[in-house]
Amino acid sequence: MESDFLHWLREWLRPHPLLKIGIGDDAAVLATAGRSDIVVTTDLVADRVDFDLRTDDPRRIGHKALAINLSDLAAMAARPLAAVVALNLPRHGALKLATELYEGLLPLAERFHVVIAGGDTNSWDGPLVVSVTALGEVTADGPLTRRGAQPGDRIIVTGTFGGSILGRHLDVEPRIEDALLLNQRYTLHAGIDCSDGLSLDLWHLCEESRCGAVIDMDRVPIATAASELSKQHAGGFSPLDHALSDGEDFELILAIPPDDAKRMLADQPLEGVPLSDLGEFVAQKGLWIQGPVGARQPFSPRGFEHHFT
Amino acid sequence: MESDFLHWLREWLRPHPLLKIGIGDDAAVLATAGRSDIVVTTDLVADRVDFDLRTDDPRRIGHKALAINLSDLAAMAARPLAAVVALNLPRHGALKLATELYEGLLPLAERFHVVIAGGDTNSWDGPLVVSVTALGEVTADGPLTRRGAQPGDRIIVTGTFGGSILGRHLDVEPRIEDALLLNQRYTLHAGIDCSDGLSLDLWHLCEESRCGAVIDMDRVPIATAASELSKQHAGGFSPLDHALSDGEDFELILAIPPDDAKRMLADQPLEGVPLSDLGEFVAQKGLWIQGPVGARQPFSPRGFEHHFT
Repeated sequence: MESDFLHWLREWLRPHPLLKIGIGDDAAVLATAGRSDIVVTTDLVADRVDFDLRTDDPRRIGHKALAINLSDLAAMAARPLAAVVALNLPRHGALKLATELYEGLLPLAERFHVVIAGGDTNSWDGPLVVSVTALGEVTADGPLTRRGAQPGDRIIVTGTFGGSILGRHLDVEPRIEDALLLNQRYTLHAGIDCSDGLSLDLWHLCEESRCGAVIDMDRVPIATAASELSKQHAGGFSPLDHALSDGEDFELILAIPPDDAKRMLADQPLEGVPLSDLGEFVAQKGLWIQGPVGARQPFSPRGFEHHFT
Repeated sequence: MESDFLHWLREWLRPHPLLKIGIGDDAAVLATAGRSDIVVTTDLVADRVDFDLRTDDPRRIGHKALAINLSDLAAMAARPLAAVVALNLPRHGALKLATELYEGLLPLAERFHVVIAGGDTNSWDGPLVVSVTALGEVTADGPLTRRGAQPGDRIIVTGTFGGSILGRHLDVEPRIEDALLLNQRYTLHAGIDCSDGLSLDLWHLCEESRCGAVIDMDRVPIATAASELSKQHAGGFSPLDHALSDGEDFELILAIPPDDAKRMLADQPLEGVPLSDLGEFVAQKGLWIQGPVGARQPFSPRGFEHHFT
């Protein structure tokens, strides 16, 4: 029963200074008066699209559902505050499933001091759907947006790319602290998190900034999983192809003026997370490849888009 | 394609003073600095559970998805600010469906000055899911909660109840302005919106307020649709039964001290929305029926709950 689950959840949730009124009312009241501007994002994940309930641990699914929302807040260099969780559960085994989803979601929430302010728990005859909305606040350093990359800025990325389907797509590590630290210490002109694919998200950032980017293919940081995936499918994509197009890396792609980029790369200020320079933003729109010699070649972004007609 | 839809949506959405950064970035930024506390609620609706896509106009579905969230804000006497919309669309015809959902949702948003701050538009092989999260702000009169009903308070409701399944459940009229007006002019001790059923939601309010309620069955305002539904199923529920248990009326149930209740009923301050007195909150927990003579009889709340095991 829904009410049994809500009793369980209310027991589990600890008091949080931000939560004036929480689960058990029509809506939650957050003590945001006197705070900065609110940042809001929503991401919905579903069975057989974003995970596979037949093989994936529900705890990792719960983790992912919240983590990808926090990753969007990281891409805005916003500090997370709260989240609400709407579930559509397959009827059979729903209570156990709901509990396990929260067992994955709540530790992540706690780590980033995110209060689960409420939710909506439904059951139906369809597959599992988890819809999370996350709220954050803008810090004194201001929000990071997709608009602002300037010709001459360096393309800086966190982490490595490709092959997330082998498991990393469930164990998303939102770059919250990293984004806040970088936004505080360096000038960030623009940023995006990589969900659809490195090249496609870089292109999204260029589109919003009305500029282009030249990628130095030799510098793309390729994840071990991208090489593994390439080996598994002989004759298919190369590790670099996977890094450029797989998506769900949830790393940050940043536009940073050259001097700050240089300083940042020398500092390598993120613990356990490498920062790499992939190339340069340019006035000419579109994506380009810079070969070792000769002119730029155009490059078509590749990645994931929901196709519907 | 998702991007085609987003282009359409960006064209459609008007600028809104609250929206600093909107669709097209990783998250939205709302100009909430210096404002009151934020109220947040989420409600997810799905095909064959909350509507039937085979027969219901998608515009009404879009309207409902937002309206039930606004109804939760009304139940908190909060002023709506913004909403985000996550869609899981059946792949075939998804672009047309997404457009029609928004054609129902956007006029309602505009009416209540709610900015659509963002969303997530997905397609899959499953049925339509619409997940909305709404944000509001607490007014100077404070939030209305489920905790605060006191013995002696009158049970006051807006509108009429029962038979919403005949169509009213899609054309939800969130009692936003009504709640704000009542909260400003009268002392409201507690409130809830009626989604699960009049008796069940009254019971929820009693549970949170740690009190009980005595219902005068003669005073329950029965909707025309409740009588129609009763006629359609001879030998089934009476119109009163429908009014007490059908749910999805999205009317307000309020706990109001006797003097203010008296004044409110004499004023009838809501345009086109009757206010009725159903009885009294009492110290003894549970729901009770007050007959014309004799002792109170216990009454089991009836309504909708998601059953899962």
